[in-house]
Amino acid sequence: MATQQLASWAVGLQYANLTAPVIAAAVASVYNWAGCAIGGYVQDAPTIALNTTQLFGGPATSSIFGAANSSLQTDAQIAALVNGIASHIDDYDDTHLETIIHPAGPVASALFAVTEWKAPISGPDFLTAFVAGVEAECKLGLSVYPQHYDVGWHITSTTGSVGAAVAVGKLLKLDVPTMQQAIGIACTQVVGMQEFFGSDTKSFHVGRAAQGGMLAALLASRGYTSSLQGLEAKFGWAHVVSTRENMTAEFNTLGKVWEVQKNTFKPFPCGIVVHPTIDASIQLRTKALGMGLDISDITSVVARVNPEVLVLTGKTDPQTGLEGKFSAYHATAVALLFGKATPTEFTDAVVLNSTVITLRKRITTTPDPSVREDEAYVSALFKDGTNVTQHVEHAIGSLDNPLSDAQLKTKFIDQVALVLGDGGALKAFNAFTNIANMSDVGKIAQSFRGSNTSTSSLASSGNSGGVGNLVITTLCVLLFGVGFGITILI
Amino acid sequence: MATQQLASWAVGLQYANLTAPVIAAAVASVYNWAGCAIGGYVQDAPTIALNTTQLFGGPATSSIFGAANSSLQTDAQIAALVNGIASHIDDYDDTHLETIIHPAGPVASALFAVTEWKAPISGPDFLTAFVAGVEAECKLGLSVYPQHYDVGWHITSTTGSVGAAVAVGKLLKLDVPTMQQAIGIACTQVVGMQEFFGSDTKSFHVGRAAQGGMLAALLASRGYTSSLQGLEAKFGWAHVVSTRENMTAEFNTLGKVWEVQKNTFKPFPCGIVVHPTIDASIQLRTKALGMGLDISDITSVVARVNPEVLVLTGKTDPQTGLEGKFSAYHATAVALLFGKATPTEFTDAVVLNSTVITLRKRITTTPDPSVREDEAYVSALFKDGTNVTQHVEHAIGSLDNPLSDAQLKTKFIDQVALVLGDGGALKAFNAFTNIANMSDVGKIAQSFRGSNTSTSSLASSGNSGGVGNLVITTLCVLLFGVGFGITILI
Repeated sequence: MATQQLASWAVGLQYANLTAPVIAAAVASVYNWAGCAIGGYVQDAPTIALNTTQLFGGPATSSIFGAANSSLQTDAQIAALVNGIASHIDDYDDTHLETIIHPAGPVASALFAVTEWKAPISGPDFLTAFVAGVEAECKLGLSVYPQHYDVGWHITSTTGSVGAAVAVGKLLKLDVPTMQQAIGIACTQVVGMQEFFGSDTKSFHVGRAAQGGMLAALLASRGYTSSLQGLEAKFGWAHVVSTRENMTAEFNTLGKVWEVQKNTFKPFPCGIVVHPTIDASIQLRTKALGMGLDISDITSVVARVNPEVLVLTGKTDPQTGLEGKFSAYHATAVALLFGKATPTEFTDAVVLNSTVITLRKRITTTPDPSVREDEAYVSALFKDGTNVTQHVEHAIGSLDNPLSDAQLKTKFIDQVALVLGDGGALKAFNAFTNIANMSDVGKIAQSFRGSNTSTSSLASSGNSGGVGNLVITTLCVLLFGVGFGITILI
Repeated sequence: MATQQLASWAVGLQYANLTAPVIAAAVASVYNWAGCAIGGYVQDAPTIALNTTQLFGGPATSSIFGAANSSLQTDAQIAALVNGIASHIDDYDDTHLETIIHPAGPVASALFAVTEWKAPISGPDFLTAFVAGVEAECKLGLSVYPQHYDVGWHITSTTGSVGAAVAVGKLLKLDVPTMQQAIGIACTQVVGMQEFFGSDTKSFHVGRAAQGGMLAALLASRGYTSSLQGLEAKFGWAHVVSTRENMTAEFNTLGKVWEVQKNTFKPFPCGIVVHPTIDASIQLRTKALGMGLDISDITSVVARVNPEVLVLTGKTDPQTGLEGKFSAYHATAVALLFGKATPTEFTDAVVLNSTVITLRKRITTTPDPSVREDEAYVSALFKDGTNVTQHVEHAIGSLDNPLSDAQLKTKFIDQVALVLGDGGALKAFNAFTNIANMSDVGKIAQSFRGSNTSTSSLASSGNSGGVGNLVITTLCVLLFGVGFGITILI
């Protein structure tokens, strides 16, 4: 019954069912996602994925948000993949702490791509679909966590394909049995393992889940059959991917306990389990400097942390910026050295910097089950024998100490300005925070597109020579024109 | 080391390493796949998948084989999906019996799509890549079978994405580390669960594995990073999807024990475990008719079978042709009633036929662990008290009783003639069996394309009105022409 239960709830959900705090949480989740999707586009992975999939590119209906200043649109499947990758590549997005799911990625990446393609979709319809998708993936995650996670699955994408299917299915106005079929096609695509953390493939998981879920909803809408009990059947999702499941119990709370309200936003662009250590290290640095100490005089550091820190961010000798995001040693070192941990501290150059490496090697991380996941104790011993300690009870960004609205706005602006400049970033911020009032969310990119008139921005240098595009586009027109047997069936 | 071991072997494999029997087995596997991909196209699933994905369709480089008479080409990703679905939808393809993998599906579906797109690829290069892919997926399957299968995964697609990545990576001439990265991106996409057997989604698994593997190889070739130990790492493929693995042991046999030589070809279009029962039932029918008995006088039937028969084909009350393929009761009934089990006996109409249903209800299936997987005992009691029994020691199509070359040819012709007529089927047979001698395998479809000049064939009625295509194509040219911001980056 679980699949039907989820499908029935999602199909029945109305905007009027969403309380003001739920809507606010959804809007924050969406704009935080957008900031990451725009800012993350300067990394290599989104561009490689774009250039590869554009070999198969179809009608350009949907925006690559990080390329907004060059007005780049692609087909909806590619947009879902590339925006999904860009939104997650910095490990800077959002976290549903009870499951460590990053909920917006798969859902928003699919939803925006379809919303632009199937315009007009209103703000309320968009947000209702978004909430339906987020609740679906988080409830599903809760029903198999932690067993499903502990074996090595990347839970964001393994549940995300279902979230994306539910969200897109909602836009397509699927009926309940068809939504069940869509959930089936989505859940049989289980993408994502933790081995790929620290590589481009971690964010591929998010984009692929968005694509897979979108495709599932579209196939089901056209009569493609799967199963009415894909989630709960003996050889269906839950039993195959987990040794524990309690979907019915979790789905009973749909619409009563809103998971989107529990979404948190990362203050640091790296594995969330190491955030308390970073927070403590930044505070420790401030304290030490106030005592007249010199960070370069640190001889040893001990971080006493929740055991998950070593499981997920245990890389002792990272070689790339992406690997640095999964190294508690690197994160602690940059926090102590620079007093911050922003995308700038997780580049290849900083990871290979000799000062950083020297301090990294002086750091010991001690797992302690009595330390909570949002807590850390850090102590640093200096040459003169001084020992400075710092305890963080609830790390910044956690449920008990969330980013303020102002901090979340700053996070958005800082990321987006990398691509669109400060003015463009503010325009984009205003657009995404106004989403509930839009009659056609598909037009959102137009409101900030081309904001940065500089031709030397980080984003445009990463891909797409304009002349090359023109040549290819012309070639395509010629190919179509001479009738190369291209048939597009609708 | 397992990922590197597999990658090194695959990268090093040369056509000269393939013995004559290996080449013969590869060619038979390829043409049996092609027969299924052409014949299976008359089902609904490939057309729904085609029409859905063509919404995102790009450059038309690769043939939909089942639409050869209408010269339909699509982008390579869509061709891989649709041919993969068509090749598996009838459950009539091939089987590596030790793992129940249907090896050709994911590998050939990806390879033909890329081969036409990246022409020219020679026959020897094509077959070497095909063998590399098949060995990869079957060795991987052997290393986790049966635990991985028993929990509910559809092993054809869960290993198939790796097979497709290795095969396409071979065509792209990846070096060893890049092949390792490709294997990583492929193996993190785990598609396919047994709950979806008997629905369109079972064959989606095969097509999606082909797409995912192809995309993995292309992404890796452009520098997208994953892991060098995706298969064996603690949170990598084998440990996440199975409670058992012995990859190193299996990979040690690469190039020594050829899995492609163990490939078998299905004589009946349905779950392979029920084939011995069908074989016995057909023989029992002949015996009974010879005794002057009337099949309609059967009052009860008992099939004593290997226990897997009920696990995989235990549907007692199928409602569709696809469900009938997973019903030992339906398969036994049609074998007794009609003396054959071809695609014609697994249509919705036959599954819902009252005579068939009546006999189906008189059939009992008894699991017996002492009965081997290729063995069955069937006994039928007639109204007059006569009991007719039949024991099949090695079912037709099994390793000990394989289809002869003549039978395999007949199977191909019967399927392909549905789409291309008898003449076209023979032309296609000659093309696929000559593959080793081709200098450009990408031209294979041209040799039998348009063979059936009839406009009322099953295939063309299933999709693509010519006028509609013209309108859409024209529309696309216009869209491209007015510069709708379409950019294709290569």
